[in-house]
Amino acid sequence: MTILLSVTGFDPSRWWQALHDAAPERRIVLDPADAGDEAIDYAVVWKQPPGLLATLPHLKAIFSIGAGVDHILADRQLPDVPIARIVADDLKERMSEYVLWRVLDHFRRGSSYRKQQAQRIWHERMQPGAREITVGIMGLGALGIDAAKKLRVMGFDVAGWSRSVKTVSGVKTYAGADGLGDFLAVSDIIVVLLPLTDDTRGIIGRDLLARLKRDTPLGGPVLINAGRGALQDEAAILAALDDGRLMEASLDVFTVEPLPAESRLWSHPKVFVTPHAAALSDPDALAPIIIRQIGAHERGETLQNVVDRQAGY
Amino acid sequence: MTILLSVTGFDPSRWWQALHDAAPERRIVLDPADAGDEAIDYAVVWKQPPGLLATLPHLKAIFSIGAGVDHILADRQLPDVPIARIVADDLKERMSEYVLWRVLDHFRRGSSYRKQQAQRIWHERMQPGAREITVGIMGLGALGIDAAKKLRVMGFDVAGWSRSVKTVSGVKTYAGADGLGDFLAVSDIIVVLLPLTDDTRGIIGRDLLARLKRDTPLGGPVLINAGRGALQDEAAILAALDDGRLMEASLDVFTVEPLPAESRLWSHPKVFVTPHAAALSDPDALAPIIIRQIGAHERGETLQNVVDRQAGY
Ligand SMILES: NC(=O)c1ccc[n+]([C@@H]2O[C@H](COP(=O)([O-])OP(=O)(O)OC[C@H]3O[C@@H](n4cnc5c(N)ncnc54)[C@H](OP(=O)(O)O)[C@@H]3O)[C@@H](O)[C@H]2O)c1
Ligand SMILES: NC(=O)c1ccc[n+]([C@@H]2O[C@H](COP(=O)([O-])OP(=O)(O)OC[C@H]3O[C@@H](n4cnc5c(N)ncnc54)[C@H](OP(=O)(O)O)[C@@H]3O)[C@@H](O)[C@H]2O)c1
Repeated sequence: MTILLSVTGFDPSRWWQALHDAAPERRIVLDPADAGDEAIDYAVVWKQPPGLLATLPHLKAIFSIGAGVDHILADRQLPDVPIARIVADDLKERMSEYVLWRVLDHFRRGSSYRKQQAQRIWHERMQPGAREITVGIMGLGALGIDAAKKLRVMGFDVAGWSRSVKTVSGVKTYAGADGLGDFLAVSDIIVVLLPLTDDTRGIIGRDLLARLKRDTPLGGPVLINAGRGALQDEAAILAALDDGRLMEASLDVFTVEPLPAESRLWSHPKVFVTPHAAALSDPDALAPIIIRQIGAHERGETLQNVVDRQAGY
Repeated sequence: MTILLSVTGFDPSRWWQALHDAAPERRIVLDPADAGDEAIDYAVVWKQPPGLLATLPHLKAIFSIGAGVDHILADRQLPDVPIARIVADDLKERMSEYVLWRVLDHFRRGSSYRKQQAQRIWHERMQPGAREITVGIMGLGALGIDAAKKLRVMGFDVAGWSRSVKTVSGVKTYAGADGLGDFLAVSDIIVVLLPLTDDTRGIIGRDLLARLKRDTPLGGPVLINAGRGALQDEAAILAALDDGRLMEASLDVFTVEPLPAESRLWSHPKVFVTPHAAALSDPDALAPIIIRQIGAHERGETLQNVVDRQAGY
């Protein structure tokens, strides 16, 4: 039984080691050619080269090393086998750290205090309490729900938007295109944790930005995107920041990554940039989950967290 | 029945209005002279002028508008009446916002990412998970316990240090001078939420800084002080930052406030300064609590949150 590990954009060695540590008896190859005569049964991937998986006749399942699968589905010649994504406490915890960090930094006026410090200005800013703010989460999935719960613990009001109708304790929920307007009307800080699909591509564009709440207790709306870069129209975000419709933004993901040096997002005083680092996939925490899934599949049990290809997530 | 509102360092009008709104039938004066013939029964104070309260023969109780009372006890001619401080959800929530904000910003390497952004550098930093970090809270009182619980929800390990032995679910607790060494040995990030007393003055000094854990998953220890400025020796903190024994610090309080323009803390690249703004006392949230206490006292009920003058908090 052989596993192909195919990742693009970073060094696979930590993942190789972690998979090996979790399953020392399995052969793990970085290239199908290295498998020799042996069939490749499973693929563990991040942005695999398009067409590669179609060349593996014995492939039984594909595993994303992250929560998202847009990087897998972008391959138009995918074989018809199940695709499983990662749902894990480690990933939820890391994403919620990022979300709380960014929400608190905007909410507690981090950029203003850093500016004041640079000028040696001692001036306390008016500060609403968390309960006066509604954080609106776009995408109430594994990650969105975890962030929502933790924001509630901190005292924030929380709203959530999803495709299907959901019930989450303590959270005002809205669903679908019909619910979007009401969701936006209550949200002071928007946190985007959507997957990238045909339906969500470009959703954070001119239209949505024009519909954001204007009078928030912070003086304007805040946008935080940790979903995927292609969800956002970066020119529209810059325009909204420039004309004041958007107060501040934290962006972890970008339409082109790495974010090109010439992007105005780097230098915009109202934007905080991180390099797609909101929730890193820690191989030591996640490889054992994939290995357990492979074991279960071998025993004929059903795979967890299988993607709906039609929906695209 | 007349209430004296005596505050130093800021405009009393919002507090006056909030006390008035909570008790329209009570007379509230800003100066004993304004009371005319009427006796002043209660004083609501922040850094009252020393000796002032001793001139009020009918005074029945003193109320701090904040959690701390060091600013009251600094008056060496205090009359022998109960002093009550504020314990309130609003104050706990605000302080925990500050604590989580600062812990997350240090933990998620805010200063490094801001520096990288200024240089347009796309580089993901190694990031431990919250569960690999122990946040050590000095002062497990109303504020320390609330912060501890919320840090636990985020996944951090939490240790706490207090004067008496305490049990807090999920928190490793240490007490007194004997427990301090063990507490420091496990703590990667230190959060100071102590009151200022004869015992705690200057506690964050050369000695304590020398005993901080060196090898933390972040590369060094972090100090966050939102208690009182006189708890810290600022020269010792600067020396520890300069020689690398301390990695970074967030300071909300200072030995002299406003922090003098010539202080090197303003410009130190490893220090984040806020102007004693960690948990503002919101008059609208807190005045009703003081008015309820006065009502209870009038009915002969016991006051809540009365200070132990001997202990100094
Ligand atoms: N920046 C990073 O480091 C990082 C790390 C990990 C993940 N991510 C991103 O985070 C995303 C979310 O992860 P997850 O595990 O929470 O995914 P998930 O469990 O699949 O949840 C996705 C959520 O989005 C909602 N949604 C999907 N399409 C929608 C539409 N057209 N309209 C409204 N709502 C829609 C879903 O609605 P239903 O509940 O109705 O299905 C669901 O609530 C991933 O896809 C990935 O792109 C980023
Ligand atoms: N920066 C701001 O905006 C701001 C706002 C509000 C409050 N504060 C500060 O925060 C402080 C804490 O407030 P709180 O409501 O949590 O106070 P608290 O309920 O009185 O708690 C004080 C804690 O400190 C511990 N302690 C006192 N002396 C000690 C000593 N010598 N050694 C070890 N531990 C000691 C106490 O131990 P025991 O549990 O054994 O008694 C208790 O756990 C206030 O006094 C104030 O200075 C700052």
